[in-house]
Amino acid sequence: MPTQSGHTRAICANKVIGTTVRNAAGESIGKVEDVVLDKQSNNIMFAVVGFGGFLGMGEKYHPVPWSTLNYDDSQNAYIVNFTKDQLKAAPADSMDELTRNDGFNYRDRTYDYYKAPHYWS
Amino acid sequence: MPTQSGHTRAICANKVIGTTVRNAAGESIGKVEDVVLDKQSNNIMFAVVGFGGFLGMGEKYHPVPWSTLNYDDSQNAYIVNFTKDQLKAAPADSMDELTRNDGFNYRDRTYDYYKAPHYWS
Repeated sequence: MPTQSGHTRAICANKVIGTTVRNAAGESIGKVEDVVLDKQSNNIMFAVVGFGGFLGMGEKYHPVPWSTLNYDDSQNAYIVNFTKDQLKAAPADSMDELTRNDGFNYRDRTYDYYKAPHYWS
Repeated sequence: MPTQSGHTRAICANKVIGTTVRNAAGESIGKVEDVVLDKQSNNIMFAVVGFGGFLGMGEKYHPVPWSTLNYDDSQNAYIVNFTKDQLKAAPADSMDELTRNDGFNYRDRTYDYYKAPHYWS
């Protein structure tokens, strides 16, 4: 999938969604379920990763900062530098809740939780 | 679809993709085929609208600035303020070409063509 390789910054949402997410140990921990977009600021608010199978948390969806997903060509997967313990305690909810109140509640909690640089000022 | 209503800025890519696009006259001119994301800057580079049926241009995809898509709850569609003539002459290509060279070529041509404010400086 050339548009997801390290050779380009431009990535199609259709290719992001469904891509496997692995942790640093190489374990599959879920897949990208969706990407939440900000209609007003032109920014990607967060990606949404389903960890259900891994953590046994059913239908919960985990928002993660877009910047934390590092694509690895050789594995055709996103690699995240989170530990299992970090994931188990991470913000998670239904999709409706994640996007409630303009998505800001979960965005702010998520960036703080993962200590990711804010894209907003 | 509450996450696409005017009550929230946070919109799921899964709901954007497939949504009908209409012009100001209310005519259906296609649908959103994809959204191209910038892995590095956290920005939405452009949406990709397929106008095939309307313009008879086969498999060509039209990049349009994200900011030009205005969601209308009552029509469950994005409304664009483009004329047919503008659309016929607009930048369009295959998905592979749209994302080539980090997507910058088509992004820059597209924003210039539609006279949309740049999200980059």
